[in-house]
Amino acid sequence: MLTSSQRQLLRVISESGPLSRTVLAASMGLSKAAMSGIARDLITLGVLHETETVYGQGRPSILLDLHPEGAFFVGISLLEDPAPMVLSDLNGKIIARENMPLSRDPEIIAGLIADALPKLLAGRPDVADKLSGLGVALSGFVDEKQANCVQSTLLGWQDVPLAKIVRQKTGVETFIENDAKAVAVSEKLFGIARDIRNFSVVSFGDGIGCAHFIRGKLYRGNHGGAGEIAHCTIEPNGSPCRCGKRGCLDTVASIKAIKEMSKAEGLSCTSLTELEEEASVGNAVAIRILHRAGAALGLAIAHIIQFNDPGMILITHVEGNFDGLFGTVVQQAIEANVLPRYAGQTPIRTQRVDSDIWARGAASIAAHNFLIGPNLN
Amino acid sequence: MLTSSQRQLLRVISESGPLSRTVLAASMGLSKAAMSGIARDLITLGVLHETETVYGQGRPSILLDLHPEGAFFVGISLLEDPAPMVLSDLNGKIIARENMPLSRDPEIIAGLIADALPKLLAGRPDVADKLSGLGVALSGFVDEKQANCVQSTLLGWQDVPLAKIVRQKTGVETFIENDAKAVAVSEKLFGIARDIRNFSVVSFGDGIGCAHFIRGKLYRGNHGGAGEIAHCTIEPNGSPCRCGKRGCLDTVASIKAIKEMSKAEGLSCTSLTELEEEASVGNAVAIRILHRAGAALGLAIAHIIQFNDPGMILITHVEGNFDGLFGTVVQQAIEANVLPRYAGQTPIRTQRVDSDIWARGAASIAAHNFLIGPNLN
Repeated sequence: MLTSSQRQLLRVISESGPLSRTVLAASMGLSKAAMSGIARDLITLGVLHETETVYGQGRPSILLDLHPEGAFFVGISLLEDPAPMVLSDLNGKIIARENMPLSRDPEIIAGLIADALPKLLAGRPDVADKLSGLGVALSGFVDEKQANCVQSTLLGWQDVPLAKIVRQKTGVETFIENDAKAVAVSEKLFGIARDIRNFSVVSFGDGIGCAHFIRGKLYRGNHGGAGEIAHCTIEPNGSPCRCGKRGCLDTVASIKAIKEMSKAEGLSCTSLTELEEEASVGNAVAIRILHRAGAALGLAIAHIIQFNDPGMILITHVEGNFDGLFGTVVQQAIEANVLPRYAGQTPIRTQRVDSDIWARGAASIAAHNFLIGPNLN
Repeated sequence: MLTSSQRQLLRVISESGPLSRTVLAASMGLSKAAMSGIARDLITLGVLHETETVYGQGRPSILLDLHPEGAFFVGISLLEDPAPMVLSDLNGKIIARENMPLSRDPEIIAGLIADALPKLLAGRPDVADKLSGLGVALSGFVDEKQANCVQSTLLGWQDVPLAKIVRQKTGVETFIENDAKAVAVSEKLFGIARDIRNFSVVSFGDGIGCAHFIRGKLYRGNHGGAGEIAHCTIEPNGSPCRCGKRGCLDTVASIKAIKEMSKAEGLSCTSLTELEEEASVGNAVAIRILHRAGAALGLAIAHIIQFNDPGMILITHVEGNFDGLFGTVVQQAIEANVLPRYAGQTPIRTQRVDSDIWARGAASIAAHNFLIGPNLN
């Protein structure tokens, strides 16, 4: 367990990249002596190391950076069956992979993780010694302590203290997180959002998720409901949703909804890619469905921009390249529904997510808790 | 100009109310000796004072609180003609009022403020000595330095450095702010949001404004556009808006829009109150207009709840009591459009705003800068 000033130093480097002792001391508001003491302890712990020497005006300065092999983390994604499992270093680099069957029973999941762990660490005794946390990503609501799954429709859970159950079986400190939030944390720590303080991740898949970073920290809202865009009403008096109301974004724009609309209209497409292919050869029904879904998702993203003015929207998707009709309509609907003077000012990035990204997202939750501490509001 | 540790102490008291030296030291992470030194300086400056003595277990402790007469602020609201102007103390209490004619010329406004200032301070030489800032609230976009009006449709301004112009004429440090944001800051410093970290203010008037507090701080977004709900698309393919797109909340739910819809439908109502009266005696057109407007505003507020999960929504309104048909429809539309499991969990408060509240909001911007420092993202 690191001290709060050790974590402050690691947070600064994690956000800025390698820094000299002089710059670090200034940005932490500490004397160079005090800062150097903290850095020395972190170097002894193996979490920090000296990298290149920079020659400029005055004395050359040595840059300090996270030591990639200073700590290791395990991440498991419960979004797929089999559930992917990765071992990552302090830079988010994946150094080993395993799979385990998915179960809906928390005790069984914990047992499967405990069984798979030795395989993941096999032949790496140095890594096992430095294993500093385990993260689990899942579809559902997670409490702000990143310990309990409040509700997961996919897993059929209500109030499951999964982190504790997994810790008991594995002996490794465990944190759990919602899938979209885990990817957001991963992109902030290791990815394209590293230097962006305010951004939102919109995860487009069988369901639709969303997570906001505000002022450099994950923002969960007062009841953990921040980012629940799947159930914003996007088509007033629209189709009934499993949540009990009508016209939720989830009923129109999720891959599940798109597939259901296709089936209801008599199309035989079993994936978004197939529907895109139909649309590209002029199938009017496919075109209409993709337009309706894309317009809905784009409108919801435009609302995020109007309401919160983030510095980036990252759309993660599980299929295709997001450059077909659906992706085009999403982009157009975003532009058409933001205040014209702001149109085009919010970068929209897209990223295809696969097992690695979900599992690395899970590992990043453990890495974040190790490096920076709990991500409380 | 206060030091950062002096401001930290004032912020803690401003959020928590009167505290003992022991509690203050603990919550600031300082030794009691260091904290007492800071408090002593603030007492000498007249900003802090000792209030009641609390007897509990152990030694009795003396509580420290802001000294209401430690500093004074002037606030001017450019939302009405004549423009109201108030003098407030450090508790947000209004101790004097003046009015000045409204102008669209920044130089003339600055001159009028400079002329009115001596009248506001007349017979209070002690107050004049402690005048610590001046705030101006207006309808429009203000930059994050609270210095420049980026754009105001109402005033016909683009990039007007109003704070500087007013400071030059008055010699008083000046900050400007958007009206909804100013009221949010005022409610956080002095009002019902004092102990709420995450909340949104929705200001319902001729236009519709919104401001978010997130983790105890005003959140402006990346381009200052956070809270721009007036131009979220609430009726896709709806009526054209002056912003250039269609179906903005502003075209359906603002008082201006409600009046225009009434006129277009042949009603002679000149206020929301009159339209409410028509509705209460069964006028179907009035009922329809109020339903449409209320449903739109309620849907937008539901989106705020779904997207950001705030701890409170405060709706400010300029007319009536918000308990007629319009207010009822707004409340129902909020409940109908949030995820059923969250319905009713976000407190919705309403507050009628008058000249005093706008002008006090303006003064609170100056008070916030004095007490806590700039409200940067």
